[in-house]
Amino acid sequence: MGSFSAVALDGLPEIAAGTDLAALLAQAAGASGAGLDGGLADGDVLVLAHKAVSKAEGAVRRLSDVTPSPRAQMLAQQGGKDPRHVQVVLDESAELLRAERGVLICVTHHGFVCANAGVDASNAPADEPETVILLPRDPDGSARALRARLRELTGAAIGVIVTDSFGRAWRHGQVDVAIGIAGVAPSDDWRGRTDSVGRELRATWIATADELAAAADLARGKDSRQPAVVLRGLAAHVTADDGPGVRALLRPAAEDMFRR
Amino acid sequence: MGSFSAVALDGLPEIAAGTDLAALLAQAAGASGAGLDGGLADGDVLVLAHKAVSKAEGAVRRLSDVTPSPRAQMLAQQGGKDPRHVQVVLDESAELLRAERGVLICVTHHGFVCANAGVDASNAPADEPETVILLPRDPDGSARALRARLRELTGAAIGVIVTDSFGRAWRHGQVDVAIGIAGVAPSDDWRGRTDSVGRELRATWIATADELAAAADLARGKDSRQPAVVLRGLAAHVTADDGPGVRALLRPAAEDMFRR
Repeated sequence: MGSFSAVALDGLPEIAAGTDLAALLAQAAGASGAGLDGGLADGDVLVLAHKAVSKAEGAVRRLSDVTPSPRAQMLAQQGGKDPRHVQVVLDESAELLRAERGVLICVTHHGFVCANAGVDASNAPADEPETVILLPRDPDGSARALRARLRELTGAAIGVIVTDSFGRAWRHGQVDVAIGIAGVAPSDDWRGRTDSVGRELRATWIATADELAAAADLARGKDSRQPAVVLRGLAAHVTADDGPGVRALLRPAAEDMFRR
Repeated sequence: MGSFSAVALDGLPEIAAGTDLAALLAQAAGASGAGLDGGLADGDVLVLAHKAVSKAEGAVRRLSDVTPSPRAQMLAQQGGKDPRHVQVVLDESAELLRAERGVLICVTHHGFVCANAGVDASNAPADEPETVILLPRDPDGSARALRARLRELTGAAIGVIVTDSFGRAWRHGQVDVAIGIAGVAPSDDWRGRTDSVGRELRATWIATADELAAAADLARGKDSRQPAVVLRGLAAHVTADDGPGVRALLRPAAEDMFRR
């Protein structure tokens, strides 16, 4: 029997720049009502929506500080958007893959392909409605730092995944995917391994970290006040070292049939 | 606190054409060791890898019955593949989006965009290694029939999702997605709903059924003998009626920036 559970953490306050996020997470996981038998344990995977990380790291921009370029003004006009917001999207992008009907599909400096380079105005700090939230500068680094600090604070050897909600080609809606990974195998590669009659096993290269991200999102409350979810029972995917991080999940442009 | 659990069902035999799959699933879920407190319950979501459905429905083809066309022979030669297998892929496709280095990205007759039109030689029946498994003809219909029959057999009002493992543009590896849906809201649309300071909430259009599919895959054993997973605690996504099915998750070609 394979099984696991997912538990969203309650009681996290609004995150401010400089917050010791790991301390808040350790406390929330250890609370008596958290449903985690006293807190984080070896083999748990902590999945965290990036906005909490970005806010703690100060990866935000005030639109009042942004001067839109002519290109941002043109794109904003086409899409009926705030040109300052578009300028931030361009600043966060290495490349613009598509720009249609106000939708900007970008390649971020990290190499993620996503709408608006992950720049988001929703859930910005309540006292600063003109602020947009960026992706963390180095989401793998963020995940590694959280993992190390949580190990210090709780003693538990866990994995950490930082997520964002990405749209997909061909299908409606968004699913949460991994954008930063520490202590979790990004994927599970069965290519070349064969079944009992010599045929290749399964669909064969499973993006485990993205499935973990998607699973965690299902446990969250509707109001986004639950950025953190603990997955328990999936220790087989947790690794002793930090591992290669999210880069292992990014298809190089030269191998990608849908960047052209 | 939001939480859910995922349990893979043990004890399913090899599925043959004509098998009463619902009866097998009800029995496996009700077994004392299944970890489901006696079986399926209202609000559960049963997630089922399509191969079990395809085998039960006879949605398979023997390669010995297939005569490859000149086009299939050409594509097979380019990719180092069996031309009969390629012919089956073409038969299952409404359109071929890309053909490079032996990878065929197809639009199936259902409208799914995926590699090889979902045609798969792995996990074919052990006694027929020259058989390939197709996607079910009507995966929503399959899900609806299973849901109705499971209701008859167990009394439980559940949701059913039939899945396949799809690759993605831009990212390595595959994740399980929904290809047939009954009694589950395909997505959760927050567009236009605003937070306490009037900004749009969350990333706003969540492909719930695909996240359910991905979550379930994590509970499965490595050897693919666990096609069925029960998700419990997510009754908020289960609906009284069968609902619109997977079509609600398919982006129409005219709106799709990555079909061109």
